[in-house]
Formats: sequence, C-alpha cells, structure tokens
Amino acid sequence: MAAPSEYRVFAVGGIPEVADGDDLAELIDVALRAQETPLEPGDVLVVTQKIISKAEGRVITLDDVTAGQFATVWADEWERDPRAVELVLQESKRIVRMTRGLILSETREGWVCANAGVDQSNVGGGDAVTLLPVDSSASARRIREGLVARGQVDVPVIVSDTFGRPWRNGLMNVAIGVSGMNPIRSYVGEVDAEGYDLRVTEMAIVDELASAAEPVMNKLDAVPVAVVRGLNIPVEEHDHSALVRPAEMDLFR
Amino acid sequence: MAAPSEYRVFAVGGIPEVADGDDLAELIDVALRAQETPLEPGDVLVVTQKIISKAEGRVITLDDVTAGQFATVWADEWERDPRAVELVLQESKRIVRMTRGLILSETREGWVCANAGVDQSNVGGGDAVTLLPVDSSASARRIREGLVARGQVDVPVIVSDTFGRPWRNGLMNVAIGVSGMNPIRSYVGEVDAEGYDLRVTEMAIVDELASAAEPVMNKLDAVPVAVVRGLNIPVEEHDHSALVRPAEMDLFR
Repeated sequence: MAAPSEYRVFAVGGIPEVADGDDLAELIDVALRAQETPLEPGDVLVVTQKIISKAEGRVITLDDVTAGQFATVWADEWERDPRAVELVLQESKRIVRMTRGLILSETREGWVCANAGVDQSNVGGGDAVTLLPVDSSASARRIREGLVARGQVDVPVIVSDTFGRPWRNGLMNVAIGVSGMNPIRSYVGEVDAEGYDLRVTEMAIVDELASAAEPVMNKLDAVPVAVVRGLNIPVEEHDHSALVRPAEMDLFR
Repeated sequence: MAAPSEYRVFAVGGIPEVADGDDLAELIDVALRAQETPLEPGDVLVVTQKIISKAEGRVITLDDVTAGQFATVWADEWERDPRAVELVLQESKRIVRMTRGLILSETREGWVCANAGVDQSNVGGGDAVTLLPVDSSASARRIREGLVARGQVDVPVIVSDTFGRPWRNGLMNVAIGVSGMNPIRSYVGEVDAEGYDLRVTEMAIVDELASAAEPVMNKLDAVPVAVVRGLNIPVEEHDHSALVRPAEMDLFR
C-alpha cells in the first residue's frame, strides 16, 4: 500500500542568545545551514515570540516604569509588582478579567491572554520583562523575506506564543503572527440533515502547527525555532487577522 | 553537530467504516501491521472520538428522541432541530452560554464545548448523530490494552476531538481522553525576580499532540488514527482528569 501520510517537526538548533538589533533571518539562516537542513518548498517555519521581542527591543527594565495609581492600588492588593501591572495595562486595549491577582486582557493586536503577554521569564535579568512584538505578522514577514534574501526557499513563518485558555488546565502554543499562509484551513464536509447545507469545518491550522512545534522547542524557549516539513503548505499572502474573532461573535467579552 | 531534535506524525490508513460493537484495537492493530508500522516504545497513538463513539454505540437516531418543552421552544426560536437540542441538554451537566442558536455547555466529563459534543457530521445518515464516549479515558485504556494483547508495544492513547475556543477563530484538536501518559508536562524554569520562586510552566502536552495529529487525520475524520513517533513519551498511568480546570479556578463559568 501507499506510504502513510506523514510529516515531521524538527528543531533548529544553535540559535545564540538574541539581543536588541539582531537580524533573526541571519541567525536562522546560519543555524539552518549549520545543521544541513535548508528550507524546502512546503515547509513552515515556527519562531517563538520571545526571540522576536528581544531582537526588536521589546525588553523593558522595570526600573524605567512608573506605575500609575490604578496599577499601584491593584498590585498592592494582590502582592504584584506595580510596575509590571502598569506595563500590562499599557499593553492592553481592554481588560477581560481582573481577579485573584491575574489580569486577562486583549492586546492591541486582538489576542486575549494573561498579562497582555508581558513576561518576566527567560529575559536573563531580574528586572527585565519582554513585551509582545508590536506587529507579530510584520515580524514574521521580515524573517520570511530575510530568509529568501539569503537564498532560502520561501516558506510561511508563524510566530508562536504560549497561552492558557478557559476550562482546560495547561498551556498550549498558538500563533500570534503569520506570514505566507492562510491561518484557517477549511474542510468542506457532508451535506447536512436537510440535504442542502454544505457544512464547512474551519481549522486553525497555524495554531495546530504552533502546538506541533512546541515539543521540540521545549525547555522554556531554549530552542526558539522549528521547522514543520511534509505538509506541503502552499505559500499564500495572509497575516494573522482571520484568527482574531470579531467582538460581535465573542461570547466571553 | 548533533542531529536536530525531531519527531514525526503519521496516519494509520485503511481503518474501515466503524460500526457498533467493532473492536477498535483489532482494527487499529490490523491497520498498523498492513502498513508495516508497528508501534514502538515512546510512540503516542491518537484516535478520533468519532470512531470510538460509533464502536461504542453512541450513535442516536433523532427519530428516537422526544424533545421536551424547553428544547422545543428554544429550537423553534433559533430554527434548530428540537430533538438535537434535547440531546445536547441530556449530554450537559451545565449550560455555559446559550445564545444565537449556539449551546456551549459542560459535559459530564467536564469538557466545555459546543453542543456538548453532539455531532451530526460524518455519521452516514441524515437523522443520525453521535454523542461523546461516556468515559473517553476508559475508551483510550481499552484500545491501549487491546493493542498490547495483540502484541503491540504499550504506548499512551489519546482520544481527540475538535473544539472551538473563545476569542480565536478556527477549531483545534484537543484531547478528551487519555490513557498511559501524564496530560500535563511541567517545565521548571528560571528563578523569578525575587530570586527564590521557581517558576513552573505546565504545558497541555496531550492537547498539543492531538493538534499535531490533526493535519494527517484531516478530511473530516477520513483518517481516524495517527501515530506520534520520536518524542519518547514515557508510559505512566494517568487519565484526562488533570486537564479539567476545577470550577473554583474557572473565570468563565
């Protein structure tokens, strides 16, 4: 019989610690060549948000932040750092929930997540925090174009981050930026019970690939880049916007 | 340099249409042998809920359902089938949202999803719907034990289903049943800003693997089984319960 349908996910090793101003396309290109795994047509490249934030200077020293009164009062109540809370407010366009010391909010890009993505882990200093990229799909596009400029095949780039979700324990990787592929894959299914309404199932394929990449990127961002190979994803010009649910369809404002 | 960390996902082809009473372990064992891909230590087997529901007789003919008054009034308002709405109520232990013709509810197992998993697609008849397995982790365990009894290596089994989620468009595969692995993978990260609070990141690894399996199981359940190979997942006795967020931690009741 025919070979089973399959794909694989592999880590891109050897990416050095990233600093403000680093050219991520350059670092990824060198790493891909060093491990003799140049990109191939149909691949998808997954890059964690953290190194993009670092390369784009989205690292803030808390000492440079002055907390306002709202952040200060709330931080005192919940034993949080008021400067970090101030940053969360500045990064949010809307608070979804603010309870038990947790802020769940909507970022300017439309992502609902804890602390608006303000993150104190893996920054390499006690007082430093990272913010999400200003425009994650633009960041993805720059990496994609930079890789092509260095002679790599043009493949979609997904920027991944690690989010919680309601009702289920544990975090999952999802896509917060996309360049070069449709974030939604539509399957046309069966005709429904009345015989005429064709059902369409829309899968968040970029979120699935971000999750698929996580097991090889593990150990908390030690491996910030992975390649998904074998799914023959076509290159199409899309960003992440189709992933963001419009307010009028949102049951959990 | 060392080979990059990698894993692969492949479809288990050739599973026939499943009917009530079929032995899924038998069908999967035959299919694995036919494509010469016996299970290996460290593999994870992902099986879609739909074939489990079919094998376990969780297929209901709507003609056999009598809708109560609540289901009938609501179904009339939203132009739904009152019998399907009645089944959704029967499968739910709590309604989370009930709006615009959509019912989002908590199943007896604790999963919050649309229509309590009552599904009219891919059942092969206009009036038939599938319900979720009564105990998806027990179903996973039976498949796992049945495969071992047939000479396959003991590997974890995940039962996957396709769920929507708040704030993000598109569906993702998640795990609704688990046997043989810890559903949560904990990474111990850096020491926090105060220097003593060790941060732990808990990933929903079974949801990530369910999502990773989806691209080879696509075309709406045409391929109901996949193998994840290369992550060396240890066999440990767990079910899905660690995945269900307790009510007191739930911000979206």
